[in-house]
Amino acid sequence: MKVIPLGSRLLIKPIQEEKRTEGGIVLPDTAKEKPMKAEIVAVGNLEDADVDLHVGDKVIFSKYSGTEIKIEEEDYIIIDVEDILAKIED
Amino acid sequence: MKVIPLGSRLLIKPIQEEKRTEGGIVLPDTAKEKPMKAEIVAVGNLEDADVDLHVGDKVIFSKYSGTEIKIEEEDYIIIDVEDILAKIED
Amino acid sequence: MKVIPLGSRLLIKPIQEEKRTEGGIVLPDTAKEKPMKAEIVAVGNLEDADVDLHVGDKVIFSKYSGTEIKIEEEDYIIIDVEDILAKIED
Amino acid sequence: MKVIPLGSRLLIKPIQEEKRTEGGIVLPDTAKEKPMKAEIVAVGNLEDADVDLHVGDKVIFSKYSGTEIKIEEEDYIIIDVEDILAKIED
Amino acid sequence: MKVIPLGSRLLIKPIQEEKRTEGGIVLPDTAKEKPMKAEIVAVGNLEDADVDLHVGDKVIFSKYSGTEIKIEEEDYIIIDVEDILAKIED
Amino acid sequence: MKVIPLGSRLLIKPIQEEKRTEGGIVLPDTAKEKPMKAEIVAVGNLEDADVDLHVGDKVIFSKYSGTEIKIEEEDYIIIDVEDILAKIED
Amino acid sequence: MKVIPLGSRLLIKPIQEEKRTEGGIVLPDTAKEKPMKAEIVAVGNLEDADVDLHVGDKVIFSKYSGTEIKIEEEDYIIIDVEDILAKIED
Repeated sequence: MKVIPLGSRLLIKPIQEEKRTEGGIVLPDTAKEKPMKAEIVAVGNLEDADVDLHVGDKVIFSKYSGTEIKIEEEDYIIIDVEDILAKIED
Repeated sequence: MKVIPLGSRLLIKPIQEEKRTEGGIVLPDTAKEKPMKAEIVAVGNLEDADVDLHVGDKVIFSKYSGTEIKIEEEDYIIIDVEDILAKIED
Repeated sequence: MKVIPLGSRLLIKPIQEEKRTEGGIVLPDTAKEKPMKAEIVAVGNLEDADVDLHVGDKVIFSKYSGTEIKIEEEDYIIIDVEDILAKIED
Repeated sequence: MKVIPLGSRLLIKPIQEEKRTEGGIVLPDTAKEKPMKAEIVAVGNLEDADVDLHVGDKVIFSKYSGTEIKIEEEDYIIIDVEDILAKIED
Repeated sequence: MKVIPLGSRLLIKPIQEEKRTEGGIVLPDTAKEKPMKAEIVAVGNLEDADVDLHVGDKVIFSKYSGTEIKIEEEDYIIIDVEDILAKIED
Repeated sequence: MKVIPLGSRLLIKPIQEEKRTEGGIVLPDTAKEKPMKAEIVAVGNLEDADVDLHVGDKVIFSKYSGTEIKIEEEDYIIIDVEDILAKIED
Repeated sequence: MKVIPLGSRLLIKPIQEEKRTEGGIVLPDTAKEKPMKAEIVAVGNLEDADVDLHVGDKVIFSKYSGTEIKIEEEDYIIIDVEDILAKIED
């Protein structure tokens, strides 16, 4: 199934950050902390938005914005480009 | 009875997703989860909207938006094109 | 008494739908369900609205919008054309 | 005392409708029902409004809109032309 | 002390209306009724407002709008011209 | 430390008014009454505002607007020029 | 990890002010007082904003505005340039 965002929207996949203890054991974030990092999966029409965003980019998005959807049992968010706060480069 | 949406509205028919257990028994979604997938049944005037949407397209729409109506005992939603988040292709 | 809607408003007369049992007995809708179908009785100035609506047309209108008025003991609604969701053809 | 409405406002005098019983006895409306009919007493600058309203016209106005004022012990309403819903002709 | 209103604002002095009994005794309004009549004391820049208002004019203003200030123990209101509903002539 | 207001903002220093009794004893205002008089300490870019305001001017400002800040133990307010109601001249 | 603010946003690092007692002991602010001073760490596209802000500048920002994020265990805020109230020079 392919999801094509309409208008100035993007489809993003939230990245659940892990925390490692010193001994290397992986601790998931508490459920209360909503993830704010995501990877862009699909983009709509960003021509008017004047931003440099592409599929595969990692971004920080505005907590509680966008609409959560489930595609084949995985969680995604459809979000307006206005709610993408920043781009992350490693 | 034919319903012709006015302005930048569409008439959509929500798709109630089914879940199959491994043994193949069909389990309907819980009533709490509102469906967000729909098929376009009729379109108004989408000229200003700059989207590629046609009768028969499957879409994801914004939960709780639009107006629910009953036509010949079936449930439909009249919704503004702005509240159509994405188009789905199989 | 003649009522001439001002601006982009229309005067509509709600249609109370009846339900017939198999035996043909007419059952009125429950009072809780507000009617959303109406017939256009008079139109104001719809030039800017770019819709094809005329006196006698049947329409679906947005529940709870418009202003209810009583003319000669009959119920009518004065409503903006923006709150007319769709036109109905038989 | 002369009241000159400013901007796109009008001064209107609400018309309290009477109900006559079959025997001809006049029964005033209950106090709860706010009158929505009025006669135009003075108009401000309606040039931008593109409506045909004059002193003496009877109108239907939007309940609870406008500002009630008392002039020489009589009740009037100063109201924006946008809140005049319709014109009434006998 | 001279107060010069900025922008499209005016400085007005509310007029507390008196009521005379038939015998000529002056009865002040009850404290609950906020005065809505005022005299213009100073005007800012009304060029864009397209209204004919000058110092000394009596006006009706929108209850609860504007900002109350005290100048030399007297009550005044700084109010936007948009909240002046009408001009009064005797 | 120098504070340079950005955009159409100003830095103002509230003036706490004193009250003198007939015998000349100074009584500070009660704490409940927020001061609304201030002196302009610094101005941002007022080009678009079309007002004649300069450092040292005394002004009346809209209660509860602006942002209170502390600079070297003194209270100041950063406020938009739109919330400056009037200029005061002695 | 590099964070590139999108649109007219900036990445700022709040400055927690310390208070020194006369004897020189450092007392941190109480937790209740939110810091309002920050240093600019990265800027997005400020072309339309007409402000003179650069990385390294110290600013005063509007309390409770912007979005708090954690980068490598340090607290930052992504904030719109509109919520930067003033620039600070020593």
